[in-house]
This record gives sequence, structure tokens and C-alpha cells, in this order.
Amino acid sequence: MKIILLDGSVREFSKPQTIKEIATSIATSLGKKVVGGIIDEEFIVASEFTIDFDCQLELITDRHEQYLNVVNNTAALVCALAIKELYPNVNVAEVAVEDDDEFALTFDCEPRLRLEALEEISNKAKELIKENIEIKVEVIDAKDFSKISKNNPYLASLLGKHQCKNKKAVLFKLKELYVIGNFASLSKTSDLKVIEAQQLSGSYFLGNEKNKMLQRINGMGGIKVEEFNARIQAKEERKANDHRKIGKDLEIFHLDQLVGQGLPIWLPNGTVLKQEIKKYLMEKEWEYDFIQIETPVLGSSDLYKTSGHWDHYREDMFAPMVMGNEELVLKPMSCPHHVSVYRQQPRSYRDLPIRYAEHALQHRYESSGSLTGLERVRAMELTDSHIFVRPDQLKNEFKRCFKLITEVLRTFDIQIDYLSLSLRDPEDKEKYFPDDNMWNKAEAELEETLKELNLVYKTMIGEAAFYGPKLDIQIRTALNHEITVSTLQLDFLLPEKFDLSYINQINELERPIMIHRGLIGTYERFISVLLEQTKGVLPLWCSPKQVKIIPVNLENDTVYCEEIRDILKKEFIRSEVDLRDERLNYKIRDAQVNKIPFQLVIGKNERENKTITYRRYGSEEQITLPVAKFLELIKNEINSKGKF
Amino acid sequence: MKIILLDGSVREFSKPQTIKEIATSIATSLGKKVVGGIIDEEFIVASEFTIDFDCQLELITDRHEQYLNVVNNTAALVCALAIKELYPNVNVAEVAVEDDDEFALTFDCEPRLRLEALEEISNKAKELIKENIEIKVEVIDAKDFSKISKNNPYLASLLGKHQCKNKKAVLFKLKELYVIGNFASLSKTSDLKVIEAQQLSGSYFLGNEKNKMLQRINGMGGIKVEEFNARIQAKEERKANDHRKIGKDLEIFHLDQLVGQGLPIWLPNGTVLKQEIKKYLMEKEWEYDFIQIETPVLGSSDLYKTSGHWDHYREDMFAPMVMGNEELVLKPMSCPHHVSVYRQQPRSYRDLPIRYAEHALQHRYESSGSLTGLERVRAMELTDSHIFVRPDQLKNEFKRCFKLITEVLRTFDIQIDYLSLSLRDPEDKEKYFPDDNMWNKAEAELEETLKELNLVYKTMIGEAAFYGPKLDIQIRTALNHEITVSTLQLDFLLPEKFDLSYINQINELERPIMIHRGLIGTYERFISVLLEQTKGVLPLWCSPKQVKIIPVNLENDTVYCEEIRDILKKEFIRSEVDLRDERLNYKIRDAQVNKIPFQLVIGKNERENKTITYRRYGSEEQITLPVAKFLELIKNEINSKGKF
Repeated sequence: MKIILLDGSVREFSKPQTIKEIATSIATSLGKKVVGGIIDEEFIVASEFTIDFDCQLELITDRHEQYLNVVNNTAALVCALAIKELYPNVNVAEVAVEDDDEFALTFDCEPRLRLEALEEISNKAKELIKENIEIKVEVIDAKDFSKISKNNPYLASLLGKHQCKNKKAVLFKLKELYVIGNFASLSKTSDLKVIEAQQLSGSYFLGNEKNKMLQRINGMGGIKVEEFNARIQAKEERKANDHRKIGKDLEIFHLDQLVGQGLPIWLPNGTVLKQEIKKYLMEKEWEYDFIQIETPVLGSSDLYKTSGHWDHYREDMFAPMVMGNEELVLKPMSCPHHVSVYRQQPRSYRDLPIRYAEHALQHRYESSGSLTGLERVRAMELTDSHIFVRPDQLKNEFKRCFKLITEVLRTFDIQIDYLSLSLRDPEDKEKYFPDDNMWNKAEAELEETLKELNLVYKTMIGEAAFYGPKLDIQIRTALNHEITVSTLQLDFLLPEKFDLSYINQINELERPIMIHRGLIGTYERFISVLLEQTKGVLPLWCSPKQVKIIPVNLENDTVYCEEIRDILKKEFIRSEVDLRDERLNYKIRDAQVNKIPFQLVIGKNERENKTITYRRYGSEEQITLPVAKFLELIKNEINSKGKF
Repeated sequence: MKIILLDGSVREFSKPQTIKEIATSIATSLGKKVVGGIIDEEFIVASEFTIDFDCQLELITDRHEQYLNVVNNTAALVCALAIKELYPNVNVAEVAVEDDDEFALTFDCEPRLRLEALEEISNKAKELIKENIEIKVEVIDAKDFSKISKNNPYLASLLGKHQCKNKKAVLFKLKELYVIGNFASLSKTSDLKVIEAQQLSGSYFLGNEKNKMLQRINGMGGIKVEEFNARIQAKEERKANDHRKIGKDLEIFHLDQLVGQGLPIWLPNGTVLKQEIKKYLMEKEWEYDFIQIETPVLGSSDLYKTSGHWDHYREDMFAPMVMGNEELVLKPMSCPHHVSVYRQQPRSYRDLPIRYAEHALQHRYESSGSLTGLERVRAMELTDSHIFVRPDQLKNEFKRCFKLITEVLRTFDIQIDYLSLSLRDPEDKEKYFPDDNMWNKAEAELEETLKELNLVYKTMIGEAAFYGPKLDIQIRTALNHEITVSTLQLDFLLPEKFDLSYINQINELERPIMIHRGLIGTYERFISVLLEQTKGVLPLWCSPKQVKIIPVNLENDTVYCEEIRDILKKEFIRSEVDLRDERLNYKIRDAQVNKIPFQLVIGKNERENKTITYRRYGSEEQITLPVAKFLELIKNEINSKGKF
């Protein structure tokens, strides 16, 4: 059995070894410090896990980035024991660590726990970490499993999910309680110093709405009090920067269960923001010779059967509607619609490239558990385009699109983290259209183009679209999430399926190539990023409210304030007079809280001299200017899209 | 039995009378001329129809506007006989007269007739009009009907549709053939001089897709040859002005069966037109202090159950989609969505009026037979708004909205034909929400407002929306169709159903009133009107292509032409250089055919002097200007929305 370590060195063993034994064989001190291992870059297990197969192994110690997760996982196990001791009839389903420095523990309890139980569980868990209870790890296979899981039906259902490649799974055992979770833990409850059960919510078993709704506790654990408190504070800051909070504070969007899950409503402020961004993007598209079209949000199932979406993308689509002799479905992508426009008349080689752009509403059926604010939704407007090119135009067009994307992202101060070249997994016959020749050609063409553009990229196998390879532009959000915004995809398949053609110079029919281009992805996801990135301090040009006009004296100054508002309104500048019967300082502070770029304070001086006094958001400086000068200043900044 | 005539006079009869007998009782000459009658303003019957009930009666003679339809109906009957004689196993279903000076005859024939049959049928019909075949009218009731209909199953299914209020229906009998249709006819085939079967198409029986697909012949008849030829010519002109033809010629929209029926695709030119109009409307809405919002195209069925649409509007909605634990439906109206935004936070009396505007995509399930180009579609974008007002603001807000609508229609040179005050039919308990108090209040309020505005209007009973009365702004299209574009509706019901409130000056909760406002109706219908009205010669500002640049000499002048194009492009003016290898005159003519407002002809002179020479669409005059002057000219005209 061969084990490849992180430094590339290889160790051979003649019989199965636990991770702890492997670590000890490297150095005795390492054997003492190791708490778990990562097998083949994906499977995390406790240090007691026995390896009996060739693999790559990364050891987890207290210096490792996963160590915090090990601590949280331990806390989850302690919480599981606390619940079991408080409510003996509970069935603990699963423990897991979550993205934002926390654990999740799902369980089935009748009657359902109420919010008050959180404190009780925290207290019980605190008692348990004072005891020296051992956390045992048992590595077992399916046949042993049935004995253990007979009292807890969830364990059996979870076995497959947690099996390593030797088909064995890890169970943690605390006293008589078995918990499943493929992760590592510390070795006894007293290794923790702090523990908190923080949130209680509902959660479908395995995230599937057809399963039972279980309950979930999220919480954290720590091995030092000060470090734990610092982590709590950092987390609160991250929450304050979460687009869901900013979106609520600034009245950007709204979700209403009665309207439908994952279907965001753009509130007045959000609509301004979205429409200003759209206006800018359409201007850029005009500059780059894109042609706008608008196509229906529905398509017949026959359309998607022809395109291949029905076979390869069905599970992400909404349910079809049978109407008369048609079967209609909400479109998950606009490609076939744009193809319909292309096919609508014969095309000549002189017509190409044809660049159809559409800011297109699409619907994809995400599971209700994964829906997150604007970041993950079921209705989304994609900054979409399909470009039909001749083979000799492909590389140049690709280059142009890439330039457009980088210019646009730069306007929003969004840095590209890295580029991802997504290729098919040739083994995955279900996801990918099975035409090796076509794939080889498309992938080679794309790689060659990237090389010619001197781009550095990572290659990701199995991330391609079903119809072709793509270049994804990855960014990292303020919350350190990595997401795709823009994308450029090559497609030799749809032109084939829809029998697209153009007439070449010698009057023969030739097949065009399609480029799918997502400019900034969907408005929903992009705006979630923008809110987090800017902490809600939006650039002036797309700020929902640009100017707040505050009269010093309501009685004397209101008329002049309204004059100023009307002057701004004529120029399409968004301003409001604060007519509330509140103190001046309160109004100024309120404008700051609402992150309004310009606050004008208007009193006797301003009124008599026909001036305004302004203050920028985040600045204490007050500047007095004639109205016309101010108008010039603000218009210049809006038009140049300069930030403040 | 009392008969009220058109002049208001009343005639009493002691026993049943045919229409011919009634006419003869007025004047012997009238008795000879009368060909039919209109009972109670809606039911048209032959002069042989016996009246045995009180009614209003309008007589049809050769001076009546319905006379042409009587002639066409006679032609339909002759065609029906021609088909029956040519194909004895045919079942004739129904005859009817259609909008555009023609008849429609539906029938079931196995095997189905091919296009070549039209000529054969026309020829046979021409033979029949030379014969003196009597067209008998039999007025019968249900019990006699079964005998006649036993050889033709369609007759029985049609009886209900054609029964007059005395439950009797009219059958026409030509030789042994019975045909049903509630209309009048001339008395013998030889009363016609000309006849033409013009079109053959498919048609579901009763327009219902679940029924059998029958065949339909459209055609015309005439009693004078010259008059008939003039009608044919007028009809061709109308066809040329039909928005479907103009829309195709100018590449405005496109319908693709594979995408779905009644789901128009906006082609590049149509998208420019639509988006320019939208930009203008949104600017007007900004001027009038409307706030834009964007809401999902879906809603849960619970939402529409709450609003009442589910009960009162269900049959016009698309099929629901069951997804997870939700039932979602494409929204037929946005009212409940806008209510959701209103409800999203508490409102104060100071916040009102709140004017939400949305250019909102909606879906309504029209029968496939009624779908017509852009005029009648299943997916439509409505220029929608919902205004939440206090009772004391209602009239003023209504006035403001009416002013906005008239300003917008004037920009498009669209004349209001008349205003229609649509009230409920108190007898119709199914369509209307049953709350007499609420209806009386809403209708009184609306009528009072209209009187205060000094508006002249027609009152239409039974045309109100299910939730309240409305003022419809009716226009007459170039094809003489009367349609509703803009609408203002009062709604006391939805605020009640959704328990809407605002906090009044003394801190109590009060109920707001809603105004529904359709600014220009849907883009689809409005643009169909605009295309017919302008014959495709669109105003410069919304013209998809504004400038065509034509180089005199491709080799020498192309570079300068492209310079001009780039200057225009920077100003967002839509121009194209005609680089085709064609003669100059051909290109100029082509720009005229495509109705492009400005044609620039660029040769040596222009190139050397940095000028342009332009020609307006429809004018022969050529004017030479420096480029900068031309730019100023065209920008001024675009910005002022002046027509050319």
C-alpha cells in the first residue's frame, strides 16, 4: 500500500495503518498532534481511520486550515450527546461543518424542540466538556453498520454518503451514542473549552423536500476563550456585510413566501440599481456591436428536446405546462430562442459575426434548502448573449468578449480571482453529449485561443456545459466565497442540432460556431456580490438615492429645497427632501445610515445666495457651491461613473 | 307583443310576426327591401324569422352597414352548397361573417381538401349563382332540430350557440342542405353576381383545441361586379397595412411554432422600437413621480386565491406548475405582486400616494384560434401601475393619470376615439365579486370623478373588471378596429382582501384605495397599432434604423462613410453603411423601401469637404451639411421626438 504525502514523498506499508500510525512513522511528535487526514484531496477522516488502499494523504494538525472545522465538528458531537441526554428519544441524523465557521447538527425529535431549548442544550454541552468523555472513532463497513443503525433509521440512509473509497465509514461514539459524519474530531470532550448552540431551524433530511423535515442546530466550539470570542466577533461582522442584511437595510429586494420561494421582488431601490446597471451594460454592448433581442420566457418541450436540454438539463427545469396541444416549460436558458432568431432567415458569410444580446429572464429549479437571498434564486435575469461566428472569426471574437468582460468588471472594481477552463469529464457519458470528435475539436480550439491570449488559467475536468467547454471568470466575494460571474462558452453542438448554416463566399452552406457569453452572470447574483463588496456604499451613478436635501428650518427652507429637488429631477438625478419633523442632526445621521452619497443641508445662507452646502457620504467636510456648479459636479461624476 | 324600433317608436302586435311582416306593416316598400333584422342590438336574423316576444328591432336593408355582411353570408351559403354538391360526404358545420369583409365556412371533409379545391369550389359556386336556387329560412326549435341534425353531428352541437332568446334557431336550406348561422341572407342564389372562395385553412371546431380540426374557407360575395372589385382592392390595401405584413417587412417580430404559439419573439428592429418606447414611457413616469419596481412572472396559486383571480380569472390563466410544496402559476396580472411590495412595511398617510410602475410580463391563455400577430398574444408586457391612495387623493390622482395618458398618446399621434366607463352587470354574480355596497361606492366615485373632469364617455354595463369599475380609453386603428389601449381602474376590493392599511394623522389604521393604470396597454398590442397607424413609417426617435449611409464609390468613399457611422454611433444614433456591391440607385431605393428616415449619399464632394448630403424618407430634396451640423439636426429631432 502506497501513501503519497503532501510534499510528494511516498511511504510504503505492508499492512493497513491508521492515520495516527502513519503520522507517528514520520515523527513521534506529529503522531501526537495529528487529529485527522484528508484522503485524495476530498475525504476527511479522523486520525483513527485505517487506510488499506493506495492514496494521497494530507495530515491535519492544529496549524492546518481545517483545524477550526475539526474543533467545530467536535462541538457538534458534544451537542449531539447533550441533546440525547436531555431528550433520550431523539434520533441524531448527521453532523457536518458549514461554510461560515460553524457546525450543523440535524436530528429528529418528537415533539419538536422550541427555541428555548437552545440555552438548555448549550448548558448541558458546557457540562459535558467539563467531563472527560472519550470520543471514540469506529471505522466499520456495511455489514457491521446494520447492527448499530437499527435504533436510528437515519444512520442507514446516510451510510452511502459517508463511505470512503474502501467502502468503510467513520462513526463517532460518545458513551452509547453513535453519530455519523465524515470528518475528524478531537479525542475527548474536555479538549474543548467553549461551546455554543446558536441557532435552531428546520431542514429536510438530505436537503430533499420529499423527506421528513428535521431540526437543525448550528453552533460553534473553541479551545481557547479569547480566540473563540474573536471568531464570534468576526462572524458578526461578516453577517453585517451579508447582502441579505444590506439588501434589507437599503430596501433592495424582498422575498415573499406567498408570491413564491426563490422569486425575489425588486423593491424601488433595487429596481433603480438593477436598471442603472442594465443601462450601462447595454451601452457597453452597443459599443461592442451587440444587437439586443427579446425572446419569450417559455419554450415548448420540443424546442428543448431538439436542443438537448431536455436530456441533459431536465432536473434543473420547472415542471412543464400542458396547454392545448402544446407542452410548455419556463426557459432555463435562452440558447434555443436565439437560435430561432438566427434561423429566421438565410445568413451570408458577410453577416457574421451576429451578436445577439438579451438581458433574459430564466427559471431554474433550485432545491428550497439551497435558496439564499439574491445569491441563489429560482428566477434570474442573465446578461446573456449568443454570438454566431465563422471558424476564422472565433478567436478574435472570443478576445473581444474577454476585453468587454474585463472592462465591465473593472467599472465595478471587481477583481478577477482566476480563470477556470472547464472541460468535460470524458467518463461522464450522462452529462455530456457523446461526440468525442466534437469535444476534442472544441476543447482544442478554446485552449489554443487562451494560449494566444496569454491567459493563465486553471483546468477543471467535468465542469463544462453539456454542449461544450467554457472559460469561467471566477471572483472572490467580500465574504470570501468563490463564485462565477462571467462566462464564455464554445458550442459546436447546438449549430449541429438545429442545422444552422450560412452561405460562404463560394455559395456553399457552412456551419457557424456559437459562443455563449454571460457578461456579469445574473443580475441577482451580481448585485449580491456588489452589495457585499461595497458594504452597501454604492457608486453614485447606480446609487438608488443620490441626494438627500435637508432643510435647516422646515418652515422657511422647504420651498427652496423643493426647487433644488425639481432642478435635479429634470436632470434625472434622484433626490429627496427630508420633510420629517425631526432634529437636523438626526436627519444628517439618518442620511449617513442610508449611505446616501450627497447630503445637502439648506438654510438661510443657501436660500438667500441660491447656493447649496453639500457633504459626501463618509466625509465631515462641508462645501458650499452655487446650484449650477453643484449640478455640473454631480452630473460629471455620474456620467464618468467615478466612485465617491 | 311590443316591438321597439330604431327611432324609438313602439308597435304592438297581437300575434307572432316575421320581420318581413313587421317591415311591411310600416311601409310596403320597406317590406320588399328588408333582408334581415337585429334583435336587441346583438342577434341578427333573416327577414323570415318570426318574432313572438317583446324586443328592440333594427331592420337591415341595402343601405344598412350590415348589408355587406348579409351579401357575404349569402355567398357562404352558396359555397356550402357548392362543396356539398362536389363532395357529397362533406359535413358543413357553420357559416359566419368575419371582420374584414369576408365570410367563413367551416366543414368536415374526408379526405381533407387540398388548396387546388378552392378554384373548383369557386367555379361550382359561380354556376350555382346563375341558377335560381331558393335560400329558404326555417325557424325551428330544439325538438325539430334533432330530425334535421341526425345526418350532421355538428348542427346539434351548434344549436345552443345560435338560439335566440325564444330558444329558436335559424336554419338555411338550399336544396337538401341545411346550414346553421345566426345571420340574414338574400333570398336566392341568383341575387349574387360575383362569388369567390379565397382561402383554405384549418380550424378547430368551436375554436377549441380539444375538438376536431375542421377546414375553413374564407371568401366574399358581391351583387355588383365593379363594387366587388373595389372591395377586393380595398381589402388588399388593408392587408398591406396589416401590422403582420409591416412587422415582417421591417423585421419587427417573429412567431416560431417550435418556441410556442402566441409567444412573439422581438427581432432586433422590434427590440429597438420596444426599448425606445419603454425609455420614453419611463421618463414620463419619472416626470409623474411613479416608482419602478420589478416583480416575478410567477405567483403561487395561494396568492391568486387570496386576490380572487383564482375564482374570477382562472380560465384565462396558464396551467399551474406543482413544484415541491408549492403550486405556481404564470401571472396574468401583477396586482397581487404590487400589493406584496406595499405590504412589505407599514405605511403612513404621508407616504401616499405610492405609485408603483412596472413594465411587466404577463401571460394569459388565449385560444389558439384567436391569436393574431402582436395584436392578440399569450405573453405580453403591460405598461402597468398600481397606485395606493387615500380617499381624499383619489380624484386628483385619477386626473393626473388621465393627463399622463393623453400626453403619451399625443406623442404617438394617436387619437382617442371615445371613453368607455365600464361598470359591472349586477346580474352577473359569477364574474363580479358580490358586494353591492362596495360596487355602488366605487362606481359612484368613478362617475363623479369623470363628471368633475368634464369628460364625455359611453357607459358599458358588464365590462368592468372583477374587482372594480374602469375607464377604458378606446382608439380606432388604421384598419378601423376599435381597441382599448390605456385604462384606469378603481379598486376597493384588493385592499380589503389583502387587508392593506396606512396609519392616518390620528394614528389609526385606514384602508387605501387602489388605482390600476395601464399606460398604453401592452407593448405587443400598442406596437401593432403603431405599425398600422404609421404604415411602418415610424417617428425618427423610435425608428429601428435611423440613418443609412450610402457610399457613391465603394473603393474611395467607404472609409469616410465608416467615420460618419462611428461619429453617429458615439451619440447612440443607429446607422448602417451599405457596403453591398450594388448600384447607387438600387441602394437608395432599398433604403426607401425599408422606410429609413435619413439616407446619406456620400461621394467625392462630401469626402473632400467633410460634409454629408442627406435625403429624408419620402422626399426628393437633397441637402448638404457639415457633419457637425447634421449631427445637431438629427439629435435635436430625436430629443424633441418631432416626427419627420
